[in-house]
Amino acid sequence: MFRYELIHQEKYTGARLGRIITDHGEIQTPIFMPVGTQATVKSMDNADLHRMNAQIILGNTYHLYLRPGEEVMKEVGGLHRFMNWDRPILTDSGGFQVFSLGAIRKITEEGVKFISYLDGSRHFMRPEDSIRLQNVIGADIIMCFDECAPADADYEYTKHSMEMTTRWAKRCQQAHANPEHQALFGIVQGGMFDDLRRKSAQDLVAMDFPGYAIGGLSVGESHEKMYHMLDVTTPLLPKEKPRYLMGVGSVDALFEGVLRGVDMFDCVLQTRIARNGTAMTSEGKKVIRNATFERDFSPIDPNCDCPVCRHHTRAYVRHLIKCKEILGARLLTYHNLYFTLSLMEKMREAIAQDALLDLRTDVFKNYGIKKIGAYQND
Amino acid sequence: MFRYELIHQEKYTGARLGRIITDHGEIQTPIFMPVGTQATVKSMDNADLHRMNAQIILGNTYHLYLRPGEEVMKEVGGLHRFMNWDRPILTDSGGFQVFSLGAIRKITEEGVKFISYLDGSRHFMRPEDSIRLQNVIGADIIMCFDECAPADADYEYTKHSMEMTTRWAKRCQQAHANPEHQALFGIVQGGMFDDLRRKSAQDLVAMDFPGYAIGGLSVGESHEKMYHMLDVTTPLLPKEKPRYLMGVGSVDALFEGVLRGVDMFDCVLQTRIARNGTAMTSEGKKVIRNATFERDFSPIDPNCDCPVCRHHTRAYVRHLIKCKEILGARLLTYHNLYFTLSLMEKMREAIAQDALLDLRTDVFKNYGIKKIGAYQND
Repeated sequence: MFRYELIHQEKYTGARLGRIITDHGEIQTPIFMPVGTQATVKSMDNADLHRMNAQIILGNTYHLYLRPGEEVMKEVGGLHRFMNWDRPILTDSGGFQVFSLGAIRKITEEGVKFISYLDGSRHFMRPEDSIRLQNVIGADIIMCFDECAPADADYEYTKHSMEMTTRWAKRCQQAHANPEHQALFGIVQGGMFDDLRRKSAQDLVAMDFPGYAIGGLSVGESHEKMYHMLDVTTPLLPKEKPRYLMGVGSVDALFEGVLRGVDMFDCVLQTRIARNGTAMTSEGKKVIRNATFERDFSPIDPNCDCPVCRHHTRAYVRHLIKCKEILGARLLTYHNLYFTLSLMEKMREAIAQDALLDLRTDVFKNYGIKKIGAYQND
Repeated sequence: MFRYELIHQEKYTGARLGRIITDHGEIQTPIFMPVGTQATVKSMDNADLHRMNAQIILGNTYHLYLRPGEEVMKEVGGLHRFMNWDRPILTDSGGFQVFSLGAIRKITEEGVKFISYLDGSRHFMRPEDSIRLQNVIGADIIMCFDECAPADADYEYTKHSMEMTTRWAKRCQQAHANPEHQALFGIVQGGMFDDLRRKSAQDLVAMDFPGYAIGGLSVGESHEKMYHMLDVTTPLLPKEKPRYLMGVGSVDALFEGVLRGVDMFDCVLQTRIARNGTAMTSEGKKVIRNATFERDFSPIDPNCDCPVCRHHTRAYVRHLIKCKEILGARLLTYHNLYFTLSLMEKMREAIAQDALLDLRTDVFKNYGIKKIGAYQND
């Protein structure tokens, strides 16, 4: 089962309040999805994720293909059972990870050859392989195998890459063995070229996917450029289907994406900076590992009601991070994810009242964000 | 406040059921104390420790002295507040850690000079310093600064070391500024020499500490030898005070210690082997990271009702450990501590029924332990 319901669109922006219904429950959109690359959202357990109200998490086909591998996944009956997660899951196709390998992969029309970073073994992944793997993993939402061209790729390269991605999308659609329970999303590519983005969106929309992702953004271009590419793309996507902006999760980009009609986001930022000792707070990012916080016995974020902020101080968390204690990574990860999920909840509440621009003004001011390339209400 | 109540002693063994009352609550003995060296039981949070019913945890004066340091501890008002832990805490004096430094420390009658492993800075810790630090840290139970002689030290060295430890105990007692709220335990030393152990115990008992630790065991000697030293020592300790066997936590030694009248134990074994991928189970130790468990979808321990065993499989935990995911360390740490705390609870129940030897027979059989040097009921 997969259904998207558009509940409300803001009068003067593209922001949408919606609901996605899957076999594993409902997702209120717009939503941020914590990344659980290797069958775990780093340092969190399922109880943590439930408590912070993570509605859906991500898995990565590439990593799960290498470990624990297809056979284990098949035997256990998929990722939900493997990690005992009872809510929705989305899997990335493996495309982005494989392309990130750079020198140790080779792309052809047929698929991608790559060398495992774990043991140097050789692999070949075609669109059909990615879908077969994603069918075995069994996520509620799965992604087409795509090429994510670099931000600085030239027109010719990007055009060829985008067209191949569209051809691969067709192959993915044909290979998909479980469309009733797993919604396959198409991924719009086209780099930083308006006409290629439009062509990609139009061709994929014609193929009638149950949802659409916007890929190849936040890959090195400016935020201004990213927002422009969203301006070009989202109007071409069908209103009655969810839109997912891949790999984007900074506070400014979450607002700007939602204002342009994006419903879903994922990003490793929240969890990665946490492990390095940085907190996202209502007052902006704070590098908690800095000496400034050695004797600061106030909460990470005075305006946060998460268990970390209710129970622990900056000084304690700083101490743990300095000592490289696992608990330091845990506490900051929990807080950063909670902060982001709460922000999305506030956005949903604001959209219901046609007040997302007001919320943006407040949040940006406190967070210290300048509205560069920001969505204009005109 | 500090009080020990002996509730029941087994008819035919030295095993004791008791209760320790502190400012931060009661401790049912015999008990295992999880080690929280740097103001955290590695990978656990306070909610985890509450849920597994950890009654008391340890802190290490040496580590806390280096990080976050005395000034931070003073400013926050002690370790309970620093880590927001509301149950009893025991701090080690720093002696054991300092002596473990080997080449980078020098012992004299006055105290110990050592070099920080963190930044190479020079430090001097006297018994008075250790007590001052422990007063600042504010644990419910604090320890005398002692020298822990190596297992292979000769008679002369061990004798001198033991006598100095007794003199240091006197200085610790005199330096102790907060005896109403923090119980200072004496530490019996004397290496592997019966007469030195007896002399140490007698001299310390004469000084009337509220509790006694047995130090310098499990430092390389055989378990047989360790049990013999306990046989020599515990009968000399006052019945109306708690006894603490330092740094010991293997399943066999927990039983053998309790049977000889030990009330308290601590050990890093449980948490350390967890992080390396080894589980303590009712069927013995299992190296979960081994390939054997790749497709084993049964719980870590089929006879355990901890959340890890209820919710997760060996295959999943193995995957996490292989991927060096923090959650792998967390899940196994939780399980190993739960296993040990449950074992202590079973021991307490057995003692109440004069049936600890029967429990030992069962547990050793399933765990695969041979009774070498075991307590004899004769």
